[in-house]
Amino acid sequence: MIYEDADIYLEWEESEIPWIKIFTQSPYKEITECPDALRAKLWKAYEIVEEAMIEYFRPDKMNMASFGNYVPRVHIHAMARFKEDSFFPEPMWGTKQREGRVQLPDFEPFETMLSQRLHEQFGEKKD
Amino acid sequence: MIYEDADIYLEWEESEIPWIKIFTQSPYKEITECPDALRAKLWKAYEIVEEAMIEYFRPDKMNMASFGNYVPRVHIHAMARFKEDSFFPEPMWGTKQREGRVQLPDFEPFETMLSQRLHEQFGEKKD
Repeated sequence: MIYEDADIYLEWEESEIPWIKIFTQSPYKEITECPDALRAKLWKAYEIVEEAMIEYFRPDKMNMASFGNYVPRVHIHAMARFKEDSFFPEPMWGTKQREGRVQLPDFEPFETMLSQRLHEQFGEKKD
Repeated sequence: MIYEDADIYLEWEESEIPWIKIFTQSPYKEITECPDALRAKLWKAYEIVEEAMIEYFRPDKMNMASFGNYVPRVHIHAMARFKEDSFFPEPMWGTKQREGRVQLPDFEPFETMLSQRLHEQFGEKKD
């Protein structure tokens, strides 16, 4: 678990690439079924993850997706893609192109940075 | 072309399912490189498309994606998915599961409705 509050939580997807899933705490089937404030928070959380991934991992391209066909529960995928990953330029669900050989820095400083940014953005404002 | 204004345009992707692509007029590589107002408009446009597709086509699940690995230019895919389409529950970029046999109503009334809603949302407000 990278981050959690009353509305959302973020966790890693096990992968050769940096891949994070953003879930709502309450289950909704479709993005537009989420209350407005929660949907805005999902978009904002994705933006924070994307910016942090670009800054830290310097991917060739960011990929975003929200499917939920197997388990119809809203979650957003944020994926940092590299020309030398196993599927590029196909989506991560596409046809394998090669044996991936992505070299990545340690995830721990990234996770600390991302968690801090999410807390700063969404943390309770105290007087 | 389903809709166009100074910031965005929407067009159909040829497919067995209802599939719309939302582009920015100015090319940006990543979603977070878009100016705030444009990014907010992209999310809003996706929401309007998703709601209209759910209402008109009654899909089993909505799918959203933004890749741009082949052409690194921001665009969002909105896909109405059905249990009997060729790929469900895989993403449209996944492994084919069957010969699709999706029965869909005429797209024209949908396109008229969607275009109206986008104009209402984004049209110039006149005094």
